[in-house]
Amino acid sequence: MDDEAESDRDFFDRLAGLYGQQLPFNRVLGIHVTGVDAEGGTMAFAMRQDLIGNVFHRTLHGGVISAVLDAVGGLTASASLVARAAGLPDEKIKAMLARVGTIDLRVDYLRPGRGERFSASGRIMRSGRKVAVVRMEMHAENDLLIAVGTGTYMIG
Amino acid sequence: MDDEAESDRDFFDRLAGLYGQQLPFNRVLGIHVTGVDAEGGTMAFAMRQDLIGNVFHRTLHGGVISAVLDAVGGLTASASLVARAAGLPDEKIKAMLARVGTIDLRVDYLRPGRGERFSASGRIMRSGRKVAVVRMEMHAENDLLIAVGTGTYMIG
Amino acid sequence: MDDEAESDRDFFDRLAGLYGQQLPFNRVLGIHVTGVDAEGGTMAFAMRQDLIGNVFHRTLHGGVISAVLDAVGGLTASASLVARAAGLPDEKIKAMLARVGTIDLRVDYLRPGRGERFSASGRIMRSGRKVAVVRMEMHAENDLLIAVGTGTYMIG
Amino acid sequence: MDDEAESDRDFFDRLAGLYGQQLPFNRVLGIHVTGVDAEGGTMAFAMRQDLIGNVFHRTLHGGVISAVLDAVGGLTASASLVARAAGLPDEKIKAMLARVGTIDLRVDYLRPGRGERFSASGRIMRSGRKVAVVRMEMHAENDLLIAVGTGTYMIG
Repeated sequence: MDDEAESDRDFFDRLAGLYGQQLPFNRVLGIHVTGVDAEGGTMAFAMRQDLIGNVFHRTLHGGVISAVLDAVGGLTASASLVARAAGLPDEKIKAMLARVGTIDLRVDYLRPGRGERFSASGRIMRSGRKVAVVRMEMHAENDLLIAVGTGTYMIG
Repeated sequence: MDDEAESDRDFFDRLAGLYGQQLPFNRVLGIHVTGVDAEGGTMAFAMRQDLIGNVFHRTLHGGVISAVLDAVGGLTASASLVARAAGLPDEKIKAMLARVGTIDLRVDYLRPGRGERFSASGRIMRSGRKVAVVRMEMHAENDLLIAVGTGTYMIG
Repeated sequence: MDDEAESDRDFFDRLAGLYGQQLPFNRVLGIHVTGVDAEGGTMAFAMRQDLIGNVFHRTLHGGVISAVLDAVGGLTASASLVARAAGLPDEKIKAMLARVGTIDLRVDYLRPGRGERFSASGRIMRSGRKVAVVRMEMHAENDLLIAVGTGTYMIG
Repeated sequence: MDDEAESDRDFFDRLAGLYGQQLPFNRVLGIHVTGVDAEGGTMAFAMRQDLIGNVFHRTLHGGVISAVLDAVGGLTASASLVARAAGLPDEKIKAMLARVGTIDLRVDYLRPGRGERFSASGRIMRSGRKVAVVRMEMHAENDLLIAVGTGTYMIG
């Protein structure tokens, strides 16, 4: 692995830590980052009693779905900054990541959130100097698509 | 209070309980229903370490904001069913409420979620036989508007 | 071609006519339906002076893009009704199509609408008894993606 | 009228011309700008055969509604730049307005677009250095609300 690839890997590892264990609400959701590169990120989480939103059908709360999609969208928008982060001192990278924020989010709920494990992924659709647009998906087991979303993120 | 008004009040009380304490994820968010009638509902919740999304600025997670807006939208969509619920036996009302679900949600993040207490409200924009559209707002203290949203809900 | 396939083809041909030449505003936009089956539809249109929205850069008006995406979304939602239309008398099919309407639409503008010819496509994401959700895309020449969208349609 | 007020008025007059008669597709829609100041803008247009989208019910095309809402949102986002434009030479103002563009748009269709005259308005919800968020509404006669929308605009 050359120096550039190593510095990129460090950046992605930092993002995986930040979006997985360091963000308090992501811990509440039980999110683990399962992958991240310049094109986007993936996350996984397990069903728990706490995450239920429909007590009649015992399915995921719509707010859990929107929160995880927003998180994987933010991870993806942050990951698209990898080239800009290269060679920057740690303080500058922190400041850059602190500025990342959601401008708006749309979620389409396609099927009830039923199952034991869920995964979510994001893919960059537009990445400008200031604004990134990301499309997100959430799947239950057996690759069943339960929700899609689109988020616009401030990145500069 | 005449019988009709009393039956409506019972329905709204049931919704306040359902959306406040009975939905597990709403308990995680610390939501209290502070008002509900045929036009919409209001909720409040307090800042907690668990709800932080930006560790640099100690502000609410975007997913907390989207989850609370989805919850107050669902409460508002359910409340619009009050006339339909009148006179129905308990089992039918339960079945009716179990069918309420979010079809899609848009959230616009206007300002960082900073403060000690937050409130959210929903207002019915369209209420058909099958689908309701609700506009939602979230305020921090001093009536500072931090987010707005729009949700489309299945109600029949 | 057996009877069922022929009846389906008749239904799709009717949709191609309706969404292409019979809708007055689609004629203004210059839309041609280039394909339609149970999974979705495709359309094409050419740049014209009338469709310009940014006089500085001579690019498509954002409203042209949203209008075409809404049209291809409506075509796709209508096409998903093919099984329900099978065997129905003409009057019932007309009544069914008259009820199709957009509930809400989101459009993400990814790149300026520059070029001579544009194509748009829709794909069904959710198709229930009452509501369909469609994802749409618009490309300029060379398969350059200029906009994506999502629409929720009343279909019953 | 002092110099500053006069310069602001010139800027708003320029926007009224640009969004009314100078944008080719806005002419197709028949849009007139009926008011504009730093808080937002208003537009009006008349029903015409060309603008029909549902031939069964003779109502406005959903794409006309989305296009007009996008236009009044763009007018509102541009108008929010008035303070930044003050004192700038003409060339700089042109360049500033050429950069204004829609990032994303959501439209909620509340009632069929039936009637002879329609009006649309926009109101600034968030105005940062780079991005503005605008809420829009469209009314038919008698103040009947037929659609609402939200747009995110690049402004810097």
